[in-house]
Amino acid sequence: MRFDEAYSGKVFIMSNPNYEDAKAVIYGMPMDWTVSFRPGSRFGPNRIREASLGLEEYSPYMDKHLEEVNYFDAGDIPLPFGNAARSLDMVEEYVDKLLADGKFPIGLGGEHLLSWPIFKSMNKKYDNMAIIHIDAHADLREEYEGEVLSHSTPIRKACGLIGPENVYSFGIRSGMREEFQFAKESGMHMSKFEVAEPLKKVLPTLAGRNVYVTIDIDVLDPSCAPGTGTAEAGGITSKELLDAIMSIAESNINIIGADLVEVAPAYDPTEQTQITASKMIREIILGWADR
Amino acid sequence: MRFDEAYSGKVFIMSNPNYEDAKAVIYGMPMDWTVSFRPGSRFGPNRIREASLGLEEYSPYMDKHLEEVNYFDAGDIPLPFGNAARSLDMVEEYVDKLLADGKFPIGLGGEHLLSWPIFKSMNKKYDNMAIIHIDAHADLREEYEGEVLSHSTPIRKACGLIGPENVYSFGIRSGMREEFQFAKESGMHMSKFEVAEPLKKVLPTLAGRNVYVTIDIDVLDPSCAPGTGTAEAGGITSKELLDAIMSIAESNINIIGADLVEVAPAYDPTEQTQITASKMIREIILGWADR
Amino acid sequence: MRFDEAYSGKVFIMSNPNYEDAKAVIYGMPMDWTVSFRPGSRFGPNRIREASLGLEEYSPYMDKHLEEVNYFDAGDIPLPFGNAARSLDMVEEYVDKLLADGKFPIGLGGEHLLSWPIFKSMNKKYDNMAIIHIDAHADLREEYEGEVLSHSTPIRKACGLIGPENVYSFGIRSGMREEFQFAKESGMHMSKFEVAEPLKKVLPTLAGRNVYVTIDIDVLDPSCAPGTGTAEAGGITSKELLDAIMSIAESNINIIGADLVEVAPAYDPTEQTQITASKMIREIILGWADR
Amino acid sequence: MRFDEAYSGKVFIMSNPNYEDAKAVIYGMPMDWTVSFRPGSRFGPNRIREASLGLEEYSPYMDKHLEEVNYFDAGDIPLPFGNAARSLDMVEEYVDKLLADGKFPIGLGGEHLLSWPIFKSMNKKYDNMAIIHIDAHADLREEYEGEVLSHSTPIRKACGLIGPENVYSFGIRSGMREEFQFAKESGMHMSKFEVAEPLKKVLPTLAGRNVYVTIDIDVLDPSCAPGTGTAEAGGITSKELLDAIMSIAESNINIIGADLVEVAPAYDPTEQTQITASKMIREIILGWADR
Amino acid sequence: MRFDEAYSGKVFIMSNPNYEDAKAVIYGMPMDWTVSFRPGSRFGPNRIREASLGLEEYSPYMDKHLEEVNYFDAGDIPLPFGNAARSLDMVEEYVDKLLADGKFPIGLGGEHLLSWPIFKSMNKKYDNMAIIHIDAHADLREEYEGEVLSHSTPIRKACGLIGPENVYSFGIRSGMREEFQFAKESGMHMSKFEVAEPLKKVLPTLAGRNVYVTIDIDVLDPSCAPGTGTAEAGGITSKELLDAIMSIAESNINIIGADLVEVAPAYDPTEQTQITASKMIREIILGWADR
Amino acid sequence: MRFDEAYSGKVFIMSNPNYEDAKAVIYGMPMDWTVSFRPGSRFGPNRIREASLGLEEYSPYMDKHLEEVNYFDAGDIPLPFGNAARSLDMVEEYVDKLLADGKFPIGLGGEHLLSWPIFKSMNKKYDNMAIIHIDAHADLREEYEGEVLSHSTPIRKACGLIGPENVYSFGIRSGMREEFQFAKESGMHMSKFEVAEPLKKVLPTLAGRNVYVTIDIDVLDPSCAPGTGTAEAGGITSKELLDAIMSIAESNINIIGADLVEVAPAYDPTEQTQITASKMIREIILGWADR
Repeated sequence: MRFDEAYSGKVFIMSNPNYEDAKAVIYGMPMDWTVSFRPGSRFGPNRIREASLGLEEYSPYMDKHLEEVNYFDAGDIPLPFGNAARSLDMVEEYVDKLLADGKFPIGLGGEHLLSWPIFKSMNKKYDNMAIIHIDAHADLREEYEGEVLSHSTPIRKACGLIGPENVYSFGIRSGMREEFQFAKESGMHMSKFEVAEPLKKVLPTLAGRNVYVTIDIDVLDPSCAPGTGTAEAGGITSKELLDAIMSIAESNINIIGADLVEVAPAYDPTEQTQITASKMIREIILGWADR
Repeated sequence: MRFDEAYSGKVFIMSNPNYEDAKAVIYGMPMDWTVSFRPGSRFGPNRIREASLGLEEYSPYMDKHLEEVNYFDAGDIPLPFGNAARSLDMVEEYVDKLLADGKFPIGLGGEHLLSWPIFKSMNKKYDNMAIIHIDAHADLREEYEGEVLSHSTPIRKACGLIGPENVYSFGIRSGMREEFQFAKESGMHMSKFEVAEPLKKVLPTLAGRNVYVTIDIDVLDPSCAPGTGTAEAGGITSKELLDAIMSIAESNINIIGADLVEVAPAYDPTEQTQITASKMIREIILGWADR
Repeated sequence: MRFDEAYSGKVFIMSNPNYEDAKAVIYGMPMDWTVSFRPGSRFGPNRIREASLGLEEYSPYMDKHLEEVNYFDAGDIPLPFGNAARSLDMVEEYVDKLLADGKFPIGLGGEHLLSWPIFKSMNKKYDNMAIIHIDAHADLREEYEGEVLSHSTPIRKACGLIGPENVYSFGIRSGMREEFQFAKESGMHMSKFEVAEPLKKVLPTLAGRNVYVTIDIDVLDPSCAPGTGTAEAGGITSKELLDAIMSIAESNINIIGADLVEVAPAYDPTEQTQITASKMIREIILGWADR
Repeated sequence: MRFDEAYSGKVFIMSNPNYEDAKAVIYGMPMDWTVSFRPGSRFGPNRIREASLGLEEYSPYMDKHLEEVNYFDAGDIPLPFGNAARSLDMVEEYVDKLLADGKFPIGLGGEHLLSWPIFKSMNKKYDNMAIIHIDAHADLREEYEGEVLSHSTPIRKACGLIGPENVYSFGIRSGMREEFQFAKESGMHMSKFEVAEPLKKVLPTLAGRNVYVTIDIDVLDPSCAPGTGTAEAGGITSKELLDAIMSIAESNINIIGADLVEVAPAYDPTEQTQITASKMIREIILGWADR
Repeated sequence: MRFDEAYSGKVFIMSNPNYEDAKAVIYGMPMDWTVSFRPGSRFGPNRIREASLGLEEYSPYMDKHLEEVNYFDAGDIPLPFGNAARSLDMVEEYVDKLLADGKFPIGLGGEHLLSWPIFKSMNKKYDNMAIIHIDAHADLREEYEGEVLSHSTPIRKACGLIGPENVYSFGIRSGMREEFQFAKESGMHMSKFEVAEPLKKVLPTLAGRNVYVTIDIDVLDPSCAPGTGTAEAGGITSKELLDAIMSIAESNINIIGADLVEVAPAYDPTEQTQITASKMIREIILGWADR
Repeated sequence: MRFDEAYSGKVFIMSNPNYEDAKAVIYGMPMDWTVSFRPGSRFGPNRIREASLGLEEYSPYMDKHLEEVNYFDAGDIPLPFGNAARSLDMVEEYVDKLLADGKFPIGLGGEHLLSWPIFKSMNKKYDNMAIIHIDAHADLREEYEGEVLSHSTPIRKACGLIGPENVYSFGIRSGMREEFQFAKESGMHMSKFEVAEPLKKVLPTLAGRNVYVTIDIDVLDPSCAPGTGTAEAGGITSKELLDAIMSIAESNINIIGADLVEVAPAYDPTEQTQITASKMIREIILGWADR
């Protein structure tokens, strides 16, 4: 008796109403509790869904139509306000369940710390995992003002989990001196400022490996994504990010999941941030989730 | 497997997931095709739902809690873009079904023309129906630039359907000379500029009758509801509208359904229009739907 | 060959294309050079015209239709940027011309200093003139930081021109101590905080006199008119201002001209300030210009 | 060598640069960590200071000039991000110091929980204290989702501290059923919906007592104060709040301090919320701090 | 008696008040009735004119001054609200008249369907016409949800009118699979994603031919033109569009007219969309209209 | 007793509280009196300081940390409203003092005319000075509508002061024909449209010379800096501006001071303009002020 939601703006466009048949699952993580500067990414997932209504269902980039992929939009995980530790546990449990059911997980943030429990869940399931991290910020802090659960720390935690040599960061243009030093000394791979070109060089070296991809929308220049908590000048264009997503789609790596985080709609009255984010998710569905 | 939506902002807060048990049903009508000046009310229903997240579930006005009322949020009727005639038919069919199932219908607009099929459906089910109309505009035109399906016409149509003597308008402060003449000569009841005081005088005369209530958010002053297509200075406060809703709740009339229309969120970056509209819907649920 | 502009938003709605036949003339004064806090009223006149498109042509307040009044919209006087003295001269010359041609002048500001040359022009033509001044600010300064041409001074200048006993201010809630002292000691008439009630008491005492009316939009509360340079909390509602305009229309005074100033659209993304201002101008056309 | 900050927008207008001589001290509390719906009040104090630049220094309400009161603006207490417990301790310590130095404290929020440490500090210094609480929300929760340090709890804590019979709430129009029950049963005083009238009745009963006043800006209707985290329709006008502030100024109570909280500028592009808040602070300085 | 409008923001800057002498004519088409997602382009032409006030009259790109070209701004064609068929007829009639009078037509939209009657008019006058189409969207649909008059169809109609082999699309990054298939199979020319480079390759092949150019502002990336109904990430910069306009100006084709459509100001509070559009129109006047 | 302002958003992040020890001094110039189109840059300096709070203190571009440079933020010079001549004198006096004290001056505008007194002061102290000017506009007018003190004139004045052959402009894409002619004929150096590449060619020719750098934020494309008075399409990206700043830092010129002007926050609700400007200032501190 409830009206079909595939075109309602409440779920991602054309999503299938049944979880069971779905190959991929979109899930929202409406948490921004550890954000220090400008909060608001808790409203990101719903605005991305809403903006998806304006998308064509066919992608000329991938030459593919959304009807060719069976995906389910699970809505937002009801994360308990202000409780970061419990929220992260809930995300981990949920992704564990998705992986147990053989789904390709597509997470919508929310703040970047939310990638940490996903990394843990992925690592339990997949051997020899690598992480591709596309972001303006290094996110390599050990803690932020004494707090280990901070949106500045997930990539450092990832280095601890799977070894820094398996972590590949692109587009980084902001961080503490210590973060850049860690990047240099630890053996992790960091490409500063640029994304598409260095990524194209790295992808062949990852052929055949299980790779999870996490994208922070602030890798885009503030002109392309003003709706984010810590906008950082000097970023890439949305054209370059689309190019990067296509390169990954055309590579020989085994993509095991993805997330797109830090969309904070309140700072962008033009709505272009969520419009752009929803297009990126369409390309991820078409190019990564269905191979 | 989909997360509980009662607190997601995608359905009205605390709405029950099951249609069958529900006493009242909230449904959205995302249409603004006949609007001439500033369109955008098609996005109203979803923003009202989203804003409901910020509401307390208890009303000190009604001394009642939302958990005391069993209501279902059906989402938005998928009205076909640009096709007013078919859209109106779909609304009428849907309300017919709700009435057949014994539900109390609460419609969210969308433009005011959407009240017209609801009036028709109500009139099929209920004898001796009266309409309370709270609005800045008379909406008594026979046509608008040659078009009989216009958002300036629903109350004139209502007069034709149930007789002008059964139509009660409040708060009217804009219209053509002909509309005010019709109001005077036809036998309908029109209170200019004010709502709460004239309403309190009229309610006793409607005791025991079946009454449908339609509220256009632009009855509020633009200071209280800037997010609407045809904002009109000199309106009432939200305090007065709450007072009016309480008066109806405390009266002896038999309320058979209600709608709240013309919320157009794009014109209000402060979001207060939908915040206010969602509070009015809470009071309607508590005070009107459950008696 | 140019399209009719009466419904284009470029001239006030329904204005007559011919100056000669017109009884009243609307003219814009796009100057804000002496404004110290938040400039922008130079864009006021055009936004008021544009918002007039959303108005009904009939007023239920005045029970009158715009087609009953013949008025011309002259556009904006091309005031030289940054040159206050020359701008004021140009306004005075223009209003001289309007008065010589027997027109009823309706000025759109622009900053309040623009009323000063209008006062001078009016005083040349009319004997025994009084001024009704509706504003949040006393505007009784002799100078502002050494500058005698300031938007804080026009009413003080008016007192010098026609005698303080012929100046009536309403709604005043902001000013220097010296301004309030001057108001008390000089013999001028000042009503603090309120407009409609004190005005109704004063009007009978002005019966038969020639009265010019100047309205600063900031007499309205910021909730009703956020789009102004020096918004001041604690103001009146647009309902009260409409009431005041009607009282003047129904009085026995001889209204000789009017202006509405200080609409600064950039501070009001909801556009309600110009929507409200355009309605006030409609009432002024219907109730004051055509008697 | 640093420029005078009295007119730079960084301190409240006309504040004295020396702490020692000052009778009153303005201090900011930039914390919003426990806010569940729309954060952002951490930016409130600076925006209120900035808006104070647009104020006249003389108040026609109080017939008094800011130069008659010697007050210092201490800036914002550097509260540690995300650490509510430590932040509250820092506020308490700071207010302890102010009281030890004989200052009249004027706090700018930030969220309402910040009033709690102020209450504690006040209670240590003053016997027989009463609290006047002006707000849309009861703030009488014992905890919010398990958290005792929440912006929904300060007035309940105040009841525990000084006895419910010494707490007077005005304007309340939102809360849980339990909060309204507590208000009724505990012996505290709560006036629903209205402020000025019930306050005028209460003030004589408090004559001679030490009274602290806490104002949540959301007691104003959203039309007057859209820039706040939990806007609630049906509120009072800024005119009524000014009236209330004047009544307190004219009463025989001994006012010992005040705060104004929950200004969240990001939700109000018109800036009227901070413009209004800064005027209220001016009246508090003139009418309460200097008696 | 009406003030000179060449610098009023009501006509395009420096436009000549006389139609007869003018070589080029700017005309607005304020229609957005067939737009499905975000309407508002009806207000585009006036905002482009207004923004033209901020332009220099000299172009360093073209090394030419607006005073070297004689152009008239006709205002907006008064298109009947909601009646697409009649609106298109009116545009066709008007452009027929312009061409009969030997004018170079420069149309301002409004939605892209408005190019369709212009194409028809052009085709009646000019032999061997080609169309250059610069857009994010293919606009090659045969119908949209059953409606043949849709803003998704004008280029398909153009292919029918002049033969697909005479239609050249650039910058296309969105459409249905069927549209891209049609582009491939029909013999039309489509360059995906890029504009300036492929255009420079095509221009020599069009030497000497009569070419009409239609530009949809959404070919720009949303970062450069957020004020449009269907913003699409991954677009070109305004620098590249200027480069394309210059290439056309320097080519050997015979440009017979141009339009710029889909500017919808309400979605861009920064106003950069209309600022950018007005600069493009200046370059079109200087580089295309006067050769 | 005043709280440390280093992290309060009132001074640039990490600035030293003592003037005496500081090597560089940041000072604001809150003037926009001569701006003709869209005023508002008077609020630029404070918004840049506020946005600096969101910056990392370490720059991966310069591989340097703000703690390595000792700089003082002097606040805004209290420029007298509306008095351009006196304001310019005050700026010149202040910069004279800074240079006498051996400081590296970093000015924050405010309008571009403010660079003129800085040029004069610099020229008194330094022999053989050159100026690098990065801007969208030539700023080579002799006067603007008869006024020699206009924000369109500072670079022409600079040419008079130090000789056109010592002035290097980059990124210019707007101006009068006469300005471009002057640039060609006078012997000054002007690079149209581009910044980083031509700058890299010029820098070696300036080796060893004393060079002052003035940056107008509108050299950036409106997509990157919508918050400015005269946004001009076709500009460079913030990435290119960062590249230019780095080139200067790595060159062999002797940088003697810098300013960044024309940030007008009111036109940019996304706040990206000030976010970007504050990053540029960080790079200027790290790369230019401390060599």
